[in-house]
Amino acid sequence: MAMSTMIHNHLPAIPHTGVNRNKLVARAHQEAPVVDRPINGTKASKRAARLAESLSNLLHLHVEPPQRREVMKHYSSWDSFGDDEKHSTPTMSPKEVISDKWREIHGCTDWDSLLDPLHPCLRREILKYGEFAQATYDAFDFDRFSEYCGSCRFNSNKIFEKLGLDGKHGYKVCKYIYAMSHIDMPQWLNRTVHLGDTWSRDSNWMGFVAISDEEETHRIGRRDIVVAWRGTVAPSEWYEDFQRKLEPIGPGDDAKVEHGFHSIYTSKSEHTRYSKSSASEQVMKEVTRLVKLYKEKGEEVSLTITGHSLGGALALLNAYEAATTIPGLPISVISFGAPRVGNIAFRDQLHQMGVKTLRVVVKQDLVPKMPGVVFNEGLQKFDEITGTLDWVYTHVGAELRLDVRSSPYLKHGFNLLGFHSQETYLHLVDGFVCQSSSFREDARRDVALVNKACDMLVDELRIPHCWYQMENKGLVRNAHGRWVKPKREAEDVPVPVGSQPNFHALDEIVESRRLQPVYV
Amino acid sequence: MAMSTMIHNHLPAIPHTGVNRNKLVARAHQEAPVVDRPINGTKASKRAARLAESLSNLLHLHVEPPQRREVMKHYSSWDSFGDDEKHSTPTMSPKEVISDKWREIHGCTDWDSLLDPLHPCLRREILKYGEFAQATYDAFDFDRFSEYCGSCRFNSNKIFEKLGLDGKHGYKVCKYIYAMSHIDMPQWLNRTVHLGDTWSRDSNWMGFVAISDEEETHRIGRRDIVVAWRGTVAPSEWYEDFQRKLEPIGPGDDAKVEHGFHSIYTSKSEHTRYSKSSASEQVMKEVTRLVKLYKEKGEEVSLTITGHSLGGALALLNAYEAATTIPGLPISVISFGAPRVGNIAFRDQLHQMGVKTLRVVVKQDLVPKMPGVVFNEGLQKFDEITGTLDWVYTHVGAELRLDVRSSPYLKHGFNLLGFHSQETYLHLVDGFVCQSSSFREDARRDVALVNKACDMLVDELRIPHCWYQMENKGLVRNAHGRWVKPKREAEDVPVPVGSQPNFHALDEIVESRRLQPVYV
Repeated sequence: MAMSTMIHNHLPAIPHTGVNRNKLVARAHQEAPVVDRPINGTKASKRAARLAESLSNLLHLHVEPPQRREVMKHYSSWDSFGDDEKHSTPTMSPKEVISDKWREIHGCTDWDSLLDPLHPCLRREILKYGEFAQATYDAFDFDRFSEYCGSCRFNSNKIFEKLGLDGKHGYKVCKYIYAMSHIDMPQWLNRTVHLGDTWSRDSNWMGFVAISDEEETHRIGRRDIVVAWRGTVAPSEWYEDFQRKLEPIGPGDDAKVEHGFHSIYTSKSEHTRYSKSSASEQVMKEVTRLVKLYKEKGEEVSLTITGHSLGGALALLNAYEAATTIPGLPISVISFGAPRVGNIAFRDQLHQMGVKTLRVVVKQDLVPKMPGVVFNEGLQKFDEITGTLDWVYTHVGAELRLDVRSSPYLKHGFNLLGFHSQETYLHLVDGFVCQSSSFREDARRDVALVNKACDMLVDELRIPHCWYQMENKGLVRNAHGRWVKPKREAEDVPVPVGSQPNFHALDEIVESRRLQPVYV
Repeated sequence: MAMSTMIHNHLPAIPHTGVNRNKLVARAHQEAPVVDRPINGTKASKRAARLAESLSNLLHLHVEPPQRREVMKHYSSWDSFGDDEKHSTPTMSPKEVISDKWREIHGCTDWDSLLDPLHPCLRREILKYGEFAQATYDAFDFDRFSEYCGSCRFNSNKIFEKLGLDGKHGYKVCKYIYAMSHIDMPQWLNRTVHLGDTWSRDSNWMGFVAISDEEETHRIGRRDIVVAWRGTVAPSEWYEDFQRKLEPIGPGDDAKVEHGFHSIYTSKSEHTRYSKSSASEQVMKEVTRLVKLYKEKGEEVSLTITGHSLGGALALLNAYEAATTIPGLPISVISFGAPRVGNIAFRDQLHQMGVKTLRVVVKQDLVPKMPGVVFNEGLQKFDEITGTLDWVYTHVGAELRLDVRSSPYLKHGFNLLGFHSQETYLHLVDGFVCQSSSFREDARRDVALVNKACDMLVDELRIPHCWYQMENKGLVRNAHGRWVKPKREAEDVPVPVGSQPNFHALDEIVESRRLQPVYV
């Protein structure tokens, strides 16, 4: 399985060499919490750091000093030597048929009485969608020296197989979504486009549309369309710019959303290769096509939109548009660590249109407190600044609140990146029983995944931090002994949206796809 | 080919995220040069940083601002797209028979008139020994979570194959050398021995003894024994401790050497598993055995000792002892970026015993200026401090002086780690013609290797920095989907020196070795 260095590896993470976490935490108590500021602070990152400081002061952020915890009872069976048993359990609970209760699990009753305690079937669905969100990071090409930087490393036929998700969830990807890149491209991802040819100077892969297969459709009681949006996990790079300006989502609309998110969702340009149509147009075209296709077959259809961080914000915009465009379609958003997106009118309209939103939030994560930490529903004393209620950002929907301290596998010291990491979210969902109980004893998800791109696992587990990386960063030694970057296979090279073959997710063409690669 | 994260990846390198090298260089001009200090300075590293600062001030270190150089003419043929030809040339010049001139190339005339211009056959030999020195890094287990941290990742039968050196140079490894670890173990390599079992709490793999095979022996005119010593490439971690104290190399000796190096070479303890005999005893026992074995067969035998950095210092101590123990044996030291080791009497005794030393030195590298940058032959004004000439450190032997600025492939901005990296040394040797000429046009060594563990190559080559890393840091996904660290094969698990099978490098047992693994 080919893998890639993840975004976090490029980030100015809290350094690990010789760092005494106790000291870090102590410092966080005395001063402001440590933030992931770049070592050589750019102007923007310094501003971001300052903002994060004042933000944490505002929030009186609770930072837990690490304790000598009773972790051994949990991971003694995970100890390192001579015990293979620990590694031979399945990584997920058995699938159960939920066709008779799919509407509740999909949120038709706003997940009332399903969250505390968390219904096992709902937990399983949350993890499924969360892994789709995680896949958008795992497959992204972060290599700034790659001519395909900013694209997906695999074509849509192979992505789930490459990430070990084929067969696991029973979905197949139908279409990739691109968005203009200058908008959300953080500074550290400074492509070296001046070095020569590159697949695109102006677009990024932003996620995918997928559809449940026959077996999964049978299990979950309807044909489920999934849209998974990629986020960035470098919040400090964008949250500052993005918390300044609410704008109407449509002409004359009361509903207003954050300008930056809206701009990623809707920007396009005739002068680009991959963004002649906006992310909004691409995704709605495909979703509309799929809904029509399966409704005509007499099937029940649902739309579930997911994303982590920025991806969660885009998911909400996407849900708003889908609800407007396709009335009557059951639409849910399952977001992870997402910031606030719009004002109260936006929330109310989503509610009126029947969009169900489940926000999964880690208590210690700063991002869900953004943007509008100053201008939100919780801080009424700032009313005099905001002037009108239009300008108050607000969260929408139901919340599943997780706590880093609930897991005996995690370090509890302040860790901006670790608290926000999607793998941390998935781990905590897997272990969540109810607000008042401890971590689930029979949680099955592989704990090692947490450290993919951060340093959150207790040392005793002996899992290296930030371990998700390619062998030799993708260089291979050729027959002459030279280290070279192999060319991508033709089918893995991105092609412009406009020139995508007109692919229909019909079963009868599945075979031909295997022979003749299709680029979506 | 399995590979490992190299030492440099664990080091507090100059951060890359958003670093403007021009700024770095400019700063180096204004203040003291930037040193590889940990972000969260430990007490020791802060002292080291201060020392490096004063050291650079003392040296008036010349730092070259990066220029818009005429590099394209060199690497235009290396450009990234559509050109496979660049990757299809051999990575080394054809081997030539040197049996008639091996003594000169081995240094019997102190390499007089062979260094400027550099004789092509000598260049080739320097690269051969230099790659043995590099192999000691490439095969070292730096993973602090590994139960084998500090050992070699492969057994001696497999190391050259795993590193792509099998067949390339025509040597085979006979024995591994271990030394007590508390002496040179830098702080960043803080093994988590408290976490449970580990192969050894007190020993490190320090290098190997190898012997030329029949074909190579024929080509080079004698049976060549090689000893390759591993260094550390974190000079700031040890140079401060190591520059304080000269001590006699033997009882009543005028020759004095730096205490720290001598201590690594000679320490042992009955209470350890792997260091019941010292590195000195291990290596001399094997060298003596091999010399006896092949002399009895009537062959000519030579000893060539190599090492980079600290390894170069150990090579010199080893040469001193070998010359004392085995008179008449032709002994050469080829060292790379090695610090000073002893006083003038030490140098004179080496000279009298006929030990030939070729020191390969990069002009911009700080390490060869250590220890005793204050107390060396070049700074006589410190005589009043040193008191007596006994305490003046000095270099020995001939010098091959290289210049980072000679290579159009390299960034020239200040880079403590990059200037000292053994791969940078090998690259510069490969391109060296003579002091007055530019980089060799037909240099064949793979340029990509330079960036294995540092960031020295110009961006235009599109080679990632620090690319030498294991896929997922050695974690693999098992049949159940869990990410686990696979157990080492039994033959790759280190065994104590005392319990090593009595292996003789005789051709007739080679076959049986293949069937029955032998641990050396």
